[in-house]
Amino acid sequence: MSGSLVVVGTGPGRPELMTPATLAALAKATDLVGYGPYLDRVPATRPDQCRHASDNRVELDRARHALALAASGREVVVVSGGDPGVFAMAAAIFEAVETGDPLWRTLDIRVEPGVTAMLAAAAEAGAPLGGDFCAISLSDNLKAWATIERRLQAAAEADFVIALYNPASKARPHQLAQAFDHLRKIKAGDTPVLFVRAAGTAEAKVVTTTLAAADAAQADMRTLVIIGASTTRQVGRWVYTPRNERGARS
Amino acid sequence: MSGSLVVVGTGPGRPELMTPATLAALAKATDLVGYGPYLDRVPATRPDQCRHASDNRVELDRARHALALAASGREVVVVSGGDPGVFAMAAAIFEAVETGDPLWRTLDIRVEPGVTAMLAAAAEAGAPLGGDFCAISLSDNLKAWATIERRLQAAAEADFVIALYNPASKARPHQLAQAFDHLRKIKAGDTPVLFVRAAGTAEAKVVTTTLAAADAAQADMRTLVIIGASTTRQVGRWVYTPRNERGARS
Repeated sequence: MSGSLVVVGTGPGRPELMTPATLAALAKATDLVGYGPYLDRVPATRPDQCRHASDNRVELDRARHALALAASGREVVVVSGGDPGVFAMAAAIFEAVETGDPLWRTLDIRVEPGVTAMLAAAAEAGAPLGGDFCAISLSDNLKAWATIERRLQAAAEADFVIALYNPASKARPHQLAQAFDHLRKIKAGDTPVLFVRAAGTAEAKVVTTTLAAADAAQADMRTLVIIGASTTRQVGRWVYTPRNERGARS
Repeated sequence: MSGSLVVVGTGPGRPELMTPATLAALAKATDLVGYGPYLDRVPATRPDQCRHASDNRVELDRARHALALAASGREVVVVSGGDPGVFAMAAAIFEAVETGDPLWRTLDIRVEPGVTAMLAAAAEAGAPLGGDFCAISLSDNLKAWATIERRLQAAAEADFVIALYNPASKARPHQLAQAFDHLRKIKAGDTPVLFVRAAGTAEAKVVTTTLAAADAAQADMRTLVIIGASTTRQVGRWVYTPRNERGARS
């Protein structure tokens, strides 16, 4: 007998930004597995549902636990915030499948997409992701800082809009300042920079500044940072990147 | 007297992937403005609701029409597919605000995020966007082909996962093949490539291949193409990019 595993994302925060498909998967589950604060966002539906809350730093262990539960016949939902495929649990699940019990490859596994933080942050600010863009996690827990700098440089030189996930944490207070320093060597000082805190929640707050003036201390773990392309501009309280780049500078 | 304007995205297709916030905005609107096929996805709610369907190639005109309606006191919702901020209507709205009637700057404008095609495509295939990634529209209607090639090259050299929107259309059948040729000069031939057609709908279909073998003819207007990073790999029918790049090749 074998169960199933669905990997979902609860969206950026407001329940109204969680998809009905994700809500339906959550309501059907016998077991929810995830980081505690994300599980807390899930409405209680069935009384027999078992919640397995874990720490944020143990993604692979959590993935293996979820797969073992599914293999034992449970209907498991793995809960991420945002979209489960963007700097979240879906990749850990498939890594655990690849390196784990061969039986896990035969399990019924599904991923439900969600609204990732970058899209909610962009919506709060206008349409800064209107052109080609990239998403970079600034955390060097899982990759070398040199790799991150190489990507920042490539993104700046090719004039992508840049969305920075995990811009700062208590353990890594200085990296965003280093990233800004690196970008200032390549991009114009008047490039719009957005600090969007708690996007997609009732406490959402947008700070609009420029690359020259951007202060890394504005960012914390709940902040998404967006750095514009050469075409990105401000109109009133809005920031947007026009799709039309013909005749644009750069 | 002035109305309001909300820019929404209906998600990739299945109604279960449209957020409740978007559904609520649609239900409240007196006027819906958008490309015909996207409007057709919107459930009928109020009998007095006016639908203004337009062609796909007139984004700025459509934006101005929507803003004029809002300025006249209507509750307008502008309807995109996917997320409205990603290669869709939100940027056109702010461009119309910047270049249009100064009164429009005082309007009550809001953007509701949605599930963009890239996230739905990734979910169908596993977790290919698990690492740093970029999104590039392959259409050169609004930017020079040289700009697109420069971005493809930068993304390949810095080892981003690459999501290609608008990979092909009847008017542009050859560009995806050119893009693959360009990427083959930089990336390994065994790099996983995904053609995901109609992601997030009942007709979703995933074709998994390699960069060496990728045939551009597989793509049409409803296809999202994802090209892996050096770390992206296949396990069974799934493709994923591990978050952990420490010890990875390249």
